[in-house]
Amino acid sequence: MVFVLKLGVSRQSIEQFVGKIEAQGFKTFLSTGTEHTVVCLIGNTSTIDLNLVVETNEIVEYGKRVTEPYKAVGRTVHPEDTVINVGGARIGSGMFQVISGPCSVESEEQIVMVAKAVKNSGATMLRGGAFKPRTSPYAFVGLHEEGLKLLLIAKKETGLPIVTEIMNQTQLPLFEDVDVIQVGARNMQNFDLLREVGRCHKPILLKRGFANTIEELLMSAEYIMAEGNSQIILCERGIRTFETATRNTLDISAIPLLKHKSHLPVIVDPSHAAGIRALITPLARAAVAVGADGLMIETHNDPANALCDGAQSLNLEQFDELMKDLKGRITYENKQMGIDQ
Amino acid sequence: MVFVLKLGVSRQSIEQFVGKIEAQGFKTFLSTGTEHTVVCLIGNTSTIDLNLVVETNEIVEYGKRVTEPYKAVGRTVHPEDTVINVGGARIGSGMFQVISGPCSVESEEQIVMVAKAVKNSGATMLRGGAFKPRTSPYAFVGLHEEGLKLLLIAKKETGLPIVTEIMNQTQLPLFEDVDVIQVGARNMQNFDLLREVGRCHKPILLKRGFANTIEELLMSAEYIMAEGNSQIILCERGIRTFETATRNTLDISAIPLLKHKSHLPVIVDPSHAAGIRALITPLARAAVAVGADGLMIETHNDPANALCDGAQSLNLEQFDELMKDLKGRITYENKQMGIDQ
Amino acid sequence: MVFVLKLGVSRQSIEQFVGKIEAQGFKTFLSTGTEHTVVCLIGNTSTIDLNLVVETNEIVEYGKRVTEPYKAVGRTVHPEDTVINVGGARIGSGMFQVISGPCSVESEEQIVMVAKAVKNSGATMLRGGAFKPRTSPYAFVGLHEEGLKLLLIAKKETGLPIVTEIMNQTQLPLFEDVDVIQVGARNMQNFDLLREVGRCHKPILLKRGFANTIEELLMSAEYIMAEGNSQIILCERGIRTFETATRNTLDISAIPLLKHKSHLPVIVDPSHAAGIRALITPLARAAVAVGADGLMIETHNDPANALCDGAQSLNLEQFDELMKDLKGRITYENKQMGIDQ
Amino acid sequence: MVFVLKLGVSRQSIEQFVGKIEAQGFKTFLSTGTEHTVVCLIGNTSTIDLNLVVETNEIVEYGKRVTEPYKAVGRTVHPEDTVINVGGARIGSGMFQVISGPCSVESEEQIVMVAKAVKNSGATMLRGGAFKPRTSPYAFVGLHEEGLKLLLIAKKETGLPIVTEIMNQTQLPLFEDVDVIQVGARNMQNFDLLREVGRCHKPILLKRGFANTIEELLMSAEYIMAEGNSQIILCERGIRTFETATRNTLDISAIPLLKHKSHLPVIVDPSHAAGIRALITPLARAAVAVGADGLMIETHNDPANALCDGAQSLNLEQFDELMKDLKGRITYENKQMGIDQ
Repeated sequence: MVFVLKLGVSRQSIEQFVGKIEAQGFKTFLSTGTEHTVVCLIGNTSTIDLNLVVETNEIVEYGKRVTEPYKAVGRTVHPEDTVINVGGARIGSGMFQVISGPCSVESEEQIVMVAKAVKNSGATMLRGGAFKPRTSPYAFVGLHEEGLKLLLIAKKETGLPIVTEIMNQTQLPLFEDVDVIQVGARNMQNFDLLREVGRCHKPILLKRGFANTIEELLMSAEYIMAEGNSQIILCERGIRTFETATRNTLDISAIPLLKHKSHLPVIVDPSHAAGIRALITPLARAAVAVGADGLMIETHNDPANALCDGAQSLNLEQFDELMKDLKGRITYENKQMGIDQ
Repeated sequence: MVFVLKLGVSRQSIEQFVGKIEAQGFKTFLSTGTEHTVVCLIGNTSTIDLNLVVETNEIVEYGKRVTEPYKAVGRTVHPEDTVINVGGARIGSGMFQVISGPCSVESEEQIVMVAKAVKNSGATMLRGGAFKPRTSPYAFVGLHEEGLKLLLIAKKETGLPIVTEIMNQTQLPLFEDVDVIQVGARNMQNFDLLREVGRCHKPILLKRGFANTIEELLMSAEYIMAEGNSQIILCERGIRTFETATRNTLDISAIPLLKHKSHLPVIVDPSHAAGIRALITPLARAAVAVGADGLMIETHNDPANALCDGAQSLNLEQFDELMKDLKGRITYENKQMGIDQ
Repeated sequence: MVFVLKLGVSRQSIEQFVGKIEAQGFKTFLSTGTEHTVVCLIGNTSTIDLNLVVETNEIVEYGKRVTEPYKAVGRTVHPEDTVINVGGARIGSGMFQVISGPCSVESEEQIVMVAKAVKNSGATMLRGGAFKPRTSPYAFVGLHEEGLKLLLIAKKETGLPIVTEIMNQTQLPLFEDVDVIQVGARNMQNFDLLREVGRCHKPILLKRGFANTIEELLMSAEYIMAEGNSQIILCERGIRTFETATRNTLDISAIPLLKHKSHLPVIVDPSHAAGIRALITPLARAAVAVGADGLMIETHNDPANALCDGAQSLNLEQFDELMKDLKGRITYENKQMGIDQ
Repeated sequence: MVFVLKLGVSRQSIEQFVGKIEAQGFKTFLSTGTEHTVVCLIGNTSTIDLNLVVETNEIVEYGKRVTEPYKAVGRTVHPEDTVINVGGARIGSGMFQVISGPCSVESEEQIVMVAKAVKNSGATMLRGGAFKPRTSPYAFVGLHEEGLKLLLIAKKETGLPIVTEIMNQTQLPLFEDVDVIQVGARNMQNFDLLREVGRCHKPILLKRGFANTIEELLMSAEYIMAEGNSQIILCERGIRTFETATRNTLDISAIPLLKHKSHLPVIVDPSHAAGIRALITPLARAAVAVGADGLMIETHNDPANALCDGAQSLNLEQFDELMKDLKGRITYENKQMGIDQ
């Protein structure tokens, strides 16, 4: 950790500052330039709140961490890829899985029909919203508990593990039979919820907030791991930028960057990123090629009459075609990596 | 409401689409261009989910609402300014109030001392965090219940109504004696929380999310009003942009825009927007001039040793100077508007 | 084209507005709603400046174009893919080309050495900067005319066509022997320069500005085509967002979107998008998979001593490895599309 | 200047790196942490290209400048405010000036009429576009040389100095009688143009690019000063963000920040920032209060029939009212600062 001091700081106040730091058990080195003085800290600085030091010491111009602010989710302390087993489907380290299903669970017929179809096409997990976050208080918000029950029926019929979104921690008891709990983009910094799902013994699908940095995503994963749950799947789903031609801008670079910085599996949700059906296939192909560990794709038996997000949903035939297209690509990538999935 | 249909759509599918719309009780007008056909709806279209129509009807290129998606918070249905009474301090319609206090409540001595000082300088509400949202799981998160108790002691000592942030709806019972419940930027789209505070009979301070549009802020306020609570104070606190010289970019245009579109009072938080102490005074002056109804300013008895956000906090003397500077300005604005506050 | 009129507009002013529009030769349809009136125009509205109509007619709330503002670059008037022949290398419609070379031309030895190496690895065009845009007036700005001469020597030695950036239109005479003139991101809306290169009879490589929308990129291409030059290669090179982990955010969705809207070839520059060497290979793979027509990659014989952008340059061995990796992928894509390149 | 080295760098390569730095005449201090080594440079590091060092030395993780990359425009070397005299109107250091006029010069009658009116209302400089940058090649681009002539006629009639935009350096001879040359937002990083106007002996109005940082704006000003011209007026005109309710987001914090970092005068253009007439007055008030040195306001005799940007132009009466409103405010600010303008 390095602190650059302000111009014209007195010798006395530097000594005070250094004294304060050393009192916390760190060794320091001073480097006195022609203009500024730099204080370098030696020791395990992960316990120091960098901003706090800058904010509470008037003589400090700025500080810079040499090591990352996250520990448990980082590759430094955990170099091997994490592989997560979701009801037999293993994801991470080259094991590629496709999660598919409708935006919302609408009825037993619908969810069972979609589940059977996507399984048949090659999906290995079923998604479906029971609790839906909506910008307007007047929009359809999902079937709630009833939706969760229908998902479990679909699981029973197909054997597919289910992935569904939680909206707040009071709902946790309802999620006991859910296989993967999804924390949505708007909840990525709902820190109390992160702590609670950190105490679960289930895989968590953590979506990047549409205005959150890669570092913030990793810090939110750190919240979950800090409570003891290391089964986290990260999901890039597009960020908010000035471009309005797509719903969000898929940050494709985030995938190799996240995999470089962290050992956790990373998947891509092209449906929410693009918001346009015609872009799903090219973006899914890009996700496979860039090194993602999986995809999350919205599929609906009848997009023209879906209760939400129909414009970005594939129908069952389109999803089947996409999966046929992807299979060859996944095989190609596995061959390149010497993996026999 | 206007729907523009895709190129080359068949007469039959247009008729089907129009039939579907009219079956919902709307009158339509068709306008057949050389390239596209446009369908105009007449009637109270506030019950229609625009995106749903676009998404579920393949022949629709796009739709556009002629009226806003919010109702209760809009000026159209409620042209007069809303004035909110917080323990005697009236805010809105030219009544300007300053909320001040530390980022976090740290001790009884601290909060009482700051409360007395800011009251003395002219602040009419006391802020202080008991539950703090922090990016890192290892950072100081506030004194929780103990912090709330200390705030109430400071209220007793000074008579200042208190404003403090809630993190999730399970905390609501603890907020019974709080005067204004703050919903923070990261919770602006925590829709379940919005609904719950909508059922309170207290003023809500709703902060704009750092990546949320003005329309989304109004829709979140609509969530609260839809549950029956119309005592909402909106707060602009900076948005996330490419510029890194300031912590966030204060969207000063949002204030007159919000006041144009909505009847709710709008305040500015220059401390979080800038993140730099030297900018607080100029931004506070700009907020007064642009027509805000109030300010929220972080003040600390000892910023150099604050447990969070010290860099953006004023000390007690700086806050006193700021208030002296602002008083003349508020008087000036009131005189311009013919208000005798 | 559709205009939505403001609330409570008088019948007389509507008639005046409609009269003005019809005087320009358009047929109109009026649709009178319960709140707003909508005026729909029929005819070839490409000659109308939409914003002008909105801005100059107080009664208009807003207008919306039903068709795009560009014509010549759009697929509507030119459905077939444009294929551009650069000295024998054909780009577009599945013909994939790789442009490579150093950020700056530094010496004859350097550029010839790099040219030979990248050709050997499979690149079909040579890039190299002679005029360099730099944020600081004190930074290295390239060898200028001397740099162009060295590029021509490298071309002579290898047969590779050359691609190099122009900074302003006074330099055009110097670019006579250049094969492809690059218009850089900062010049994407230098409209006078666009017009001048539009009068050239050479391919233009038009880079997207780092804060320009996809529509603005197409409008800039339209400037070039409007002067008669239809040999335009579009290039996505990353946009400026709040994320700082990468230099820019590669907008991977822009590639299929541009190819959907326009007939022009689209390439990707992962070097400038990422600014990090380790991301070049995954992003290049994503570009191939997403349907790009080519890549532009910075390669340097000695990145550790490059005069600019060393951090994002591959060395000759890394580029060779990348090309080996890409060859199989390009073959795979061609097979999928039934192309025999 | 501080360089943080990568983990696990060998002693030998550190010595090589230090040797290279010291060979350039700098003294260094090494600070060896438990994980990273930090190299601190002492001496005048303004001659060092920071990025180049990072990019060309594999062992360097990152570097950080302790001093700013600009010199001539910074307060450090030039602490006093620069005051620029434009035909008698002095701007800077509390001298507040208002520049007004139409977006485009359209005819002699128009420009003379507007000039007389805005002068009468209190404007001290006349703006008007002769060369207009337009996104579409089919839009009105101004009267060119004829427009410049009409501006000079208006100057003769009113005595108002004129401010008008240059599009490229070949136009410079035409600008001989222009009082202030404006470099527009899209040309802020047209470095060749910056150099050329740096050789003029006239004030330059340099607008911030809509996606450029405050530091980049100062670096562009540095380009002009590096050629010998120190008469530069900086102009904030809004930046591009995700918010679409306004044309751009006025970065109000940029004004005090720029004035803190630089000695140059800073003005605000609320017309382009907002793009909405109703916001001009509140934003102009905010600009006065925040400490700007002037305003640039679009005014048109007949906005409803303006050839461009009518929606954001005030008419003559509105401008007169605005000026009456601002006069009291400017007097108020001057009194606060003890200035007798």
